[in-house]
Amino acid sequence: MNGAESLARTLLASGVDVAFTNPGTSEMHFVAALDRVAEMRCVLALFEGVVTGAADGYGRMRGKPACTLLHLAPGLGNGLANLHNASRARAPIVNIVGDHATYHKRYDAPLNADIEGIARAYSKWLKTSQSAAEVAADGAEAVAAARTAPGRIATLILPADTAWNDGSGIAAPVPVPPPAAVADAAVAGAAALLRNGKITALVLEGAALRRAGLTVAGRIAAATGATLLTPYSVGRIERGAGLVAVERIPYPVDQALERLKSIAQFILVGAKAPVAFFAYPGKPSVVTPVDAAIHVLAEPEEDVSGALEALADAVAAGRAEPVLQRLERPSAPRGAVSLPGIAATIAALLPENVIVVDESITSGRGLLPATRGAPPHDWLANPGGSIGMAMPVAVGAAVACPERKVLCLEGDGSGMYTLQSLWTMAREGLNVTTVVFANRNYAILKHELMQVGAGNPGRRALDMLEIGRPDLDWVGLARGMGVPAVRADTLEVLGRLVAAGLAGSGPSLVELVL
Amino acid sequence: MNGAESLARTLLASGVDVAFTNPGTSEMHFVAALDRVAEMRCVLALFEGVVTGAADGYGRMRGKPACTLLHLAPGLGNGLANLHNASRARAPIVNIVGDHATYHKRYDAPLNADIEGIARAYSKWLKTSQSAAEVAADGAEAVAAARTAPGRIATLILPADTAWNDGSGIAAPVPVPPPAAVADAAVAGAAALLRNGKITALVLEGAALRRAGLTVAGRIAAATGATLLTPYSVGRIERGAGLVAVERIPYPVDQALERLKSIAQFILVGAKAPVAFFAYPGKPSVVTPVDAAIHVLAEPEEDVSGALEALADAVAAGRAEPVLQRLERPSAPRGAVSLPGIAATIAALLPENVIVVDESITSGRGLLPATRGAPPHDWLANPGGSIGMAMPVAVGAAVACPERKVLCLEGDGSGMYTLQSLWTMAREGLNVTTVVFANRNYAILKHELMQVGAGNPGRRALDMLEIGRPDLDWVGLARGMGVPAVRADTLEVLGRLVAAGLAGSGPSLVELVL
Repeated sequence: MNGAESLARTLLASGVDVAFTNPGTSEMHFVAALDRVAEMRCVLALFEGVVTGAADGYGRMRGKPACTLLHLAPGLGNGLANLHNASRARAPIVNIVGDHATYHKRYDAPLNADIEGIARAYSKWLKTSQSAAEVAADGAEAVAAARTAPGRIATLILPADTAWNDGSGIAAPVPVPPPAAVADAAVAGAAALLRNGKITALVLEGAALRRAGLTVAGRIAAATGATLLTPYSVGRIERGAGLVAVERIPYPVDQALERLKSIAQFILVGAKAPVAFFAYPGKPSVVTPVDAAIHVLAEPEEDVSGALEALADAVAAGRAEPVLQRLERPSAPRGAVSLPGIAATIAALLPENVIVVDESITSGRGLLPATRGAPPHDWLANPGGSIGMAMPVAVGAAVACPERKVLCLEGDGSGMYTLQSLWTMAREGLNVTTVVFANRNYAILKHELMQVGAGNPGRRALDMLEIGRPDLDWVGLARGMGVPAVRADTLEVLGRLVAAGLAGSGPSLVELVL
Repeated sequence: MNGAESLARTLLASGVDVAFTNPGTSEMHFVAALDRVAEMRCVLALFEGVVTGAADGYGRMRGKPACTLLHLAPGLGNGLANLHNASRARAPIVNIVGDHATYHKRYDAPLNADIEGIARAYSKWLKTSQSAAEVAADGAEAVAAARTAPGRIATLILPADTAWNDGSGIAAPVPVPPPAAVADAAVAGAAALLRNGKITALVLEGAALRRAGLTVAGRIAAATGATLLTPYSVGRIERGAGLVAVERIPYPVDQALERLKSIAQFILVGAKAPVAFFAYPGKPSVVTPVDAAIHVLAEPEEDVSGALEALADAVAAGRAEPVLQRLERPSAPRGAVSLPGIAATIAALLPENVIVVDESITSGRGLLPATRGAPPHDWLANPGGSIGMAMPVAVGAAVACPERKVLCLEGDGSGMYTLQSLWTMAREGLNVTTVVFANRNYAILKHELMQVGAGNPGRRALDMLEIGRPDLDWVGLARGMGVPAVRADTLEVLGRLVAAGLAGSGPSLVELVL
């Protein structure tokens, strides 16, 4: 068994049974090994941003890593933007990056580069295997690192000769350290804040946004009157009817300041302290009140669920009844396309158990309030802010949960970064319905240009913000990659097409012209 | 004048008058400044790999840098693969990468990351501006660094507040150091080798592959009997009728070994010693004979042209007549598509002064011999080996040379990495005719799988190497981005469409089904 096969079988033994790949010559022995490791599902993408984004989506939904297979520094480079988002979503991922043979590196052949240097920014664990005998053990370590709470990116660089030389068999899984329990003082401190009569918010992220965590948080809120908040964008939240609802901190700085100004105390539960997404001249970076108390109940890597339980006990919330979201949603509107109309249309049809991947940005600002009372579902947003996330993450979510449907809400500007995702959806027959909101603008940037005080844009600046001239034809692009697609220009057509897509099997795309 | 405008005007004063951009919020003040700096041509791309590849193509053709405008670490990440190629093509590029405001970095907002860490692998000059007062001076330094021979990548990170705060006006251009003259001993050593009667080759790259350098090299060859070689892929070569022809070292290791085995001495002229593109089990990394003498006449960053002249003097080649390539080309073939037929079809129609950007890989192996006697033209290949180069480089070459026509030869697998290039071609009306060779395979990888001895691929491995199922429809993809496109399935249709594309203005695409 060569090193490549020992690595593939070790990954499998450690629970990694999906590989998102875009291989090259240096990875050919790993590819050949896949012929002999039939339990590993391999999903090809035509661009590495799709590979890493899919691994992100898979990790968010399964809570365990898939592996990627990337070709040297350029392949890793193409995958960085979605690794950025994955690192912020705290998704577990094992990257396998092929490299030149160990003895070939010193000749600085054309594809040679500093892979470790490029990988470091987003890898919590990083190693270059030095021999075929150790790749299996390295692989087992990488998986354990990726599975360490709350989910990490581990990158294993695989020189070609460590793949083709004789390996040392399959390495046993490395135990994953459990998340550290929070200190008693952290719980006691939070409990004291909740009892002192001041207005208090819990800021929830990670495990606190899953059904179980939300229920405990809901009990605490019921017992103490605390408000439940989330950062603007989170990797995954379970929401809808029957779940405890939480409120999203607004994206615009002024709105965030306004919303938070009356809150005296913030308890962080797997979340970081709220700050502005960007800096703006004359506006603060921190959106909590200057004199607010910020208390960390649990760091993201700590036992967030256990901390919530302990806090519930400390404030005697054990028997409090959490307020659960009622089933309530708008009726489907008709007629001309409007942003509120889009939100109502989606909210009216959202089926139970759907996975929504949301990168609709300006077109989707009203979606979360509108869908609050829809049947229970998962919502995956972009906590890293690097656009081009939704379609790749939808690929990964669909591979992770083949029994569920995925609704991918994508801006046209964002979608263009990783449109190759559509081909993988077609090849794998993934149950993803994609809506592209075609406003033919980087609309968020027009807003931001004003926010940063850069003045009224002239024609030359606008040309950098408008992506019309020529207009993109998303129907043609999708069909060109094998995904059935139709254009919608009224709300009823949008609703009908999306409902049909979610009811059917395989991928489809709706271009909604705004 | 704020920092952004002082930077834009400084770039202009230093000779940088083209910006390839994909901006975000942190770059909005730079975008706004472009409204006031009308002499700077701004070209928007919908993906950063197009931005950096275009800057590469521009730099190769103009010998001076364009600037890029990239959004934080993810934007730079998306641009890395084509920066890899640019670094190997030794193209001058000034990257401007926006970052969070200096005071905002410490809050680790969602888009925060280690930009310098990611930039380092491909940046010969790298700096983060610390204040608006210094961005202009930093910009002038960056341009000088980029223009330092043979052409370098300089990366300037621009925190948002250094763009919006008051700047210090326009900085004067920083003098560019001339390339160092080679040591007399390097010339004398090369001359001694050329006189000792052994079989000797000059390996040419950089300035040695332009008309003037080739002429001098041709004189040396005529006077001494030396063979003229180039690495397999080079950033730019002037070739065709009336120029001195050089021979390309083959890509396959066995062919390279076979070709070079009789050569006893290699003189490197702006080139590195020939090595295999990849390592293969049981085959050497070095493709020159084990006992061959390798002599460096000029390092890439030295005065390659001057070194050639000095060597010509030293071997008394001053009056020798170089052998010039005669005008000779095949007549256009007809009928079914074949690889020799494709090469002959292209060779038969290649117009004078065209710029060919070649990433045809397996489909284009016969192109260079066939086009050797075509009217004079430039040939831009992929010296870095990161695929997804040709269409972006064609964008940059067309912007650099609006009076010339560009023929872009692209594989279907390669093209999918950066297909967004087509939209920029359409928006800018660039004179680029693209031929996509649709073999529906990563055909090179099937070959490489055999070469690395990974055995006969099974279905699962083949699925990672074949990009059919579903077939890509390049005609639909191109039209979806505003580029007129037609499919060809015979040689005469290919010839007619390519000739029409090159005769017309604006972009077009031909999908050739293999």
